[in-house]
Amino acid sequence: MAKDRLNFCVFGAGRIGKLHARNLAVHPRARVSYVVDPVARLASDLAREVGAATAPDAAAALADREINAVVIASSTNTHVDLIAASVRAGKAVLCEKPIDLDIRRVDRCLAELKKHRVPVAIGFNRRFDPTNRAIQAAIGRGEVGEVEQIVITSRDPAPPPLSYIKVSGGLFRDMMIHDFDLARWLLGAEPVEVVAKASCRVDPKIARAGDVDGAMVILKTRNSTLCHINNSRRATYGYDQRVEVFGSKGMVRSDNLRPTAILTSNERATDSRDVLLPFFVERYAQSYRHEIDDFIDAVLSRRKPSVGAEDGRRALLLADAALQSHRTGKTVTVRAG
Amino acid sequence: MAKDRLNFCVFGAGRIGKLHARNLAVHPRARVSYVVDPVARLASDLAREVGAATAPDAAAALADREINAVVIASSTNTHVDLIAASVRAGKAVLCEKPIDLDIRRVDRCLAELKKHRVPVAIGFNRRFDPTNRAIQAAIGRGEVGEVEQIVITSRDPAPPPLSYIKVSGGLFRDMMIHDFDLARWLLGAEPVEVVAKASCRVDPKIARAGDVDGAMVILKTRNSTLCHINNSRRATYGYDQRVEVFGSKGMVRSDNLRPTAILTSNERATDSRDVLLPFFVERYAQSYRHEIDDFIDAVLSRRKPSVGAEDGRRALLLADAALQSHRTGKTVTVRAG
Amino acid sequence: MAKDRLNFCVFGAGRIGKLHARNLAVHPRARVSYVVDPVARLASDLAREVGAATAPDAAAALADREINAVVIASSTNTHVDLIAASVRAGKAVLCEKPIDLDIRRVDRCLAELKKHRVPVAIGFNRRFDPTNRAIQAAIGRGEVGEVEQIVITSRDPAPPPLSYIKVSGGLFRDMMIHDFDLARWLLGAEPVEVVAKASCRVDPKIARAGDVDGAMVILKTRNSTLCHINNSRRATYGYDQRVEVFGSKGMVRSDNLRPTAILTSNERATDSRDVLLPFFVERYAQSYRHEIDDFIDAVLSRRKPSVGAEDGRRALLLADAALQSHRTGKTVTVRAG
Amino acid sequence: MAKDRLNFCVFGAGRIGKLHARNLAVHPRARVSYVVDPVARLASDLAREVGAATAPDAAAALADREINAVVIASSTNTHVDLIAASVRAGKAVLCEKPIDLDIRRVDRCLAELKKHRVPVAIGFNRRFDPTNRAIQAAIGRGEVGEVEQIVITSRDPAPPPLSYIKVSGGLFRDMMIHDFDLARWLLGAEPVEVVAKASCRVDPKIARAGDVDGAMVILKTRNSTLCHINNSRRATYGYDQRVEVFGSKGMVRSDNLRPTAILTSNERATDSRDVLLPFFVERYAQSYRHEIDDFIDAVLSRRKPSVGAEDGRRALLLADAALQSHRTGKTVTVRAG
Repeated sequence: MAKDRLNFCVFGAGRIGKLHARNLAVHPRARVSYVVDPVARLASDLAREVGAATAPDAAAALADREINAVVIASSTNTHVDLIAASVRAGKAVLCEKPIDLDIRRVDRCLAELKKHRVPVAIGFNRRFDPTNRAIQAAIGRGEVGEVEQIVITSRDPAPPPLSYIKVSGGLFRDMMIHDFDLARWLLGAEPVEVVAKASCRVDPKIARAGDVDGAMVILKTRNSTLCHINNSRRATYGYDQRVEVFGSKGMVRSDNLRPTAILTSNERATDSRDVLLPFFVERYAQSYRHEIDDFIDAVLSRRKPSVGAEDGRRALLLADAALQSHRTGKTVTVRAG
Repeated sequence: MAKDRLNFCVFGAGRIGKLHARNLAVHPRARVSYVVDPVARLASDLAREVGAATAPDAAAALADREINAVVIASSTNTHVDLIAASVRAGKAVLCEKPIDLDIRRVDRCLAELKKHRVPVAIGFNRRFDPTNRAIQAAIGRGEVGEVEQIVITSRDPAPPPLSYIKVSGGLFRDMMIHDFDLARWLLGAEPVEVVAKASCRVDPKIARAGDVDGAMVILKTRNSTLCHINNSRRATYGYDQRVEVFGSKGMVRSDNLRPTAILTSNERATDSRDVLLPFFVERYAQSYRHEIDDFIDAVLSRRKPSVGAEDGRRALLLADAALQSHRTGKTVTVRAG
Repeated sequence: MAKDRLNFCVFGAGRIGKLHARNLAVHPRARVSYVVDPVARLASDLAREVGAATAPDAAAALADREINAVVIASSTNTHVDLIAASVRAGKAVLCEKPIDLDIRRVDRCLAELKKHRVPVAIGFNRRFDPTNRAIQAAIGRGEVGEVEQIVITSRDPAPPPLSYIKVSGGLFRDMMIHDFDLARWLLGAEPVEVVAKASCRVDPKIARAGDVDGAMVILKTRNSTLCHINNSRRATYGYDQRVEVFGSKGMVRSDNLRPTAILTSNERATDSRDVLLPFFVERYAQSYRHEIDDFIDAVLSRRKPSVGAEDGRRALLLADAALQSHRTGKTVTVRAG
Repeated sequence: MAKDRLNFCVFGAGRIGKLHARNLAVHPRARVSYVVDPVARLASDLAREVGAATAPDAAAALADREINAVVIASSTNTHVDLIAASVRAGKAVLCEKPIDLDIRRVDRCLAELKKHRVPVAIGFNRRFDPTNRAIQAAIGRGEVGEVEQIVITSRDPAPPPLSYIKVSGGLFRDMMIHDFDLARWLLGAEPVEVVAKASCRVDPKIARAGDVDGAMVILKTRNSTLCHINNSRRATYGYDQRVEVFGSKGMVRSDNLRPTAILTSNERATDSRDVLLPFFVERYAQSYRHEIDDFIDAVLSRRKPSVGAEDGRRALLLADAALQSHRTGKTVTVRAG
């Protein structure tokens, strides 16, 4: 492996693939060597933009010994196979969440990973957001004392297309999975009980597709720290992303980010602020850069990635538990075993 | 009844009794005629302060035909009997929450009330807070569209004495009952499902007394509006009282109130604000005045009180449901019938 | 003098007179004995409301030996004579600002006051506002270090009637005089240089009446602390009252107060807040109560009033200097004499 | 000229030169061809980083016909000569503020520029800040109505080295010049009157070097719009950059930017926020990118640069007027003629 620089193959040239490829292209310790996407035109456009080549398929790219690492940003159903192929080829992996929508496939994937000593990171970008990191650091410094309650608010600006909803695995596995990961990270402990309530109030087509578009969950850890998460697929005022951590010494929470810092006052209202950033691409732009940077740093310095495959599995376990609680009305006990 | 002024008897000369008596004493359409408290000294001190007489017991005061109305601010276990005696004597009643800790006694009380055509109001003061009223008015004007999610945060500055905890009925019936009432009022619909998780992290003595000191609840209405409530018996930064109402057109929420509007910046932090108001006496000072004013107005104008005995009963039903859910881990279905 | 209670005569039954009389009426250590106003109906209405008598004129009221103190809230041109008559009659005086619009008459008044040992307070209510007091206390505790710059923003919601403008003494003496007093108090030092720029942008009739409706001023103390004040006679978003104190260790500033603490978010804006409180009666309601309380306390405990006649004179000197600077374009040096 | 891409020479490899060179290096329509700096090592390090060559001096670089544009980020005393040489060589110019500290040299420079039809832009970066642009856009849409008052707060975190102070031209020409430009831009009209007061409270060595470290200014336009600017060389809480525009219909103002959006509450304070961004490199990072982008766009689309040499001259005129007012105590009338 090159001592100071990684050659990447990027799988997937859609929205997230582009985002990662562009961040890699300006990273001083990375280079995009290949872009692979079943839609040839998408692959070649992105490859040209970032100074990379295209490869006809994953196997061809992974066969190139110059490649050190891959970013998997292709559709969810391809993740497990690409992870497996990549680690077998000895390439470090940064895979977008989720690993898979089926916990059994995830378990098999993790079993396979154990046979290889290749770094695998899962793209839970929120852990790399400067505001979330500041909250986590404040907890670490003891500023809130013992963490007793967490409240996570996460609302998308508008629902995705129905075609996406149908293959998404549902709100808990597709959307709230980010909040489950964030909760685990901030709790510093595993939730062992999950209750969930969900609704479909935004668009009845979502219900007909078998999904929900709003939900509230409570998690409880073994030492009785409580965590509430709420999600909605629609917020007219923008992408609403807030975290509140409450403890024995105080509270640390986050406000949303906005495009500018202006405050408007007139005869109807005062100090009105901008609508929020539109969606995750804008809100977590810095996070994606830090995530890539952290991954590159981990691989080059031979340390474990900050967010690993087991984190991906645990978040999915919580999503599955929430879905089950929503359906049964009962507390679901989570055993990570 | 005097056309333009009510003569009151105040039962209970403790913290809340004093608060009500003082508000009545400066109200242009009220007069405190009697203060009754088993502790004679408390009664006579307060009576002197507000220009009232004392009466040896409730019966004596209620026998006075000049009395039009009573405020019941005595200990919870006396509420049901005092309500019954007062309505039988034809006195309008403003009773502090809760009516009783036992839903069967509450049901019997309400059955008794039906026999009389006397106004009975329950002191859920938060409905009279200007900030909460502004939120409710915004909902009423359609500013949030269809209400889809509500988040209520309610944290006391410090736990009450253990002696109080033991007779309080527990966190759900004593503390969260305010939030259940607020939730019902803002939801504009009855919650039909309740799940609750609770913890004892503040003081293990509270657990030994059979109670909890932190809790999270989710309520769900028939049309799938979701409401989260969180409570803690301790917040180092003051009495934390926030409400968030989220809907199809936007969100209305409330910030906490503070003693002053100063913002401090130095080399460690910027725009630091005052710690919150200490507790409910300060935070809801205006609410108590508006509550009394609304009650007097209701009685004098012969309209129904804004918050009635059935509201007291419904809030208790939700508290009981939450307690049961906390114990069983299951969703509890609430049937008001 | 009664040891524990003052009997007041209130001169003036207009907006401010009413405000003071009502605060006195509910004060435990005060009683309104007389209300005097040339408009008999105003006097008798207010007198009835606060349980006082009327007197045909000032002399009659001042002749009553039971009277201990007066509040002068009559028109500005009567202040000097009423102060003089009151102190000669041995009554403690709380006089609304300004003492007079003519510095020579103010000087003669102060010379007269020196002959008597009677407490005289001037009603600069902003010094009694809890937020301003918190700022001043923070300065006192050294939280901003050495005060280097102060910025005072003070904007009325709408201009007063032209008839008032014509007798007001002009914006500097009528409106900014409050800010000059506030500046002196927070600076803890006398401004020695004044520059001013003014404009008439709100209503050209104000210019035709010889006045301005907007102004900006810079004050400089001997040790080079700088203070900026801006005024406008119109702010569509309410009564805008902000203070910022900047120093070697940091900054303390104040936000405006609002009727409620709600925050509204929709597709056009986020966290929009209420328009500001309408005007000084609402914004400084607490200040007026604290001012009266401080005056009563000073008189009863035989200490000097917190804001004295010399403070009234100094603020007028600054207003005169600002007016002169506005007219000449030059720095005006203030010598207190 | 290349149709879609500019080849740049960057003069100056110090802090600002680096910043511009790095922004150019990742700009899709720019390329850094040369870096020129008298300190050879600085030039070669930066050149290597951005993929450029070095040139022995300006003349050598300007002789290269492939070069289309220059960025002048060298020391102030070199600006006029480099601008002249560049325009004579037909290269578009983006020159850091100020053009020069001497208005006569600036006038001669502008006279020279008139002979050439080459775009010259001056680097007043604040006009390209998204928050400032939003304020200006709100004014343009009429949201504040007629602009009546502007308040600009601009405080550096800490004074520059004395060696810099000595050659800086003083606070008005070095620091407040940014605010003068911002004021002209937001006022949409030329200030015709200037008064200034200044102080030296931060460090007496600054006074001994003939400069001041704090100042307050009032500008007045022909139609009596007033603008206040305050500056300090030290703010313990970070780089304080706020703008407030007040008019007949309302107010638009800006809050500061911070590294994260966290809010901390504990027993001492609530909702404390991060200290501000450290200094201009961080605060105006986006502005510098937009500035470069706007310059490139102007040159390639053959439109006038958004901020031209005459803007540089006008800001300096205001700085000179403020300095003169500070020294004389009088209003200084500015005639641009």
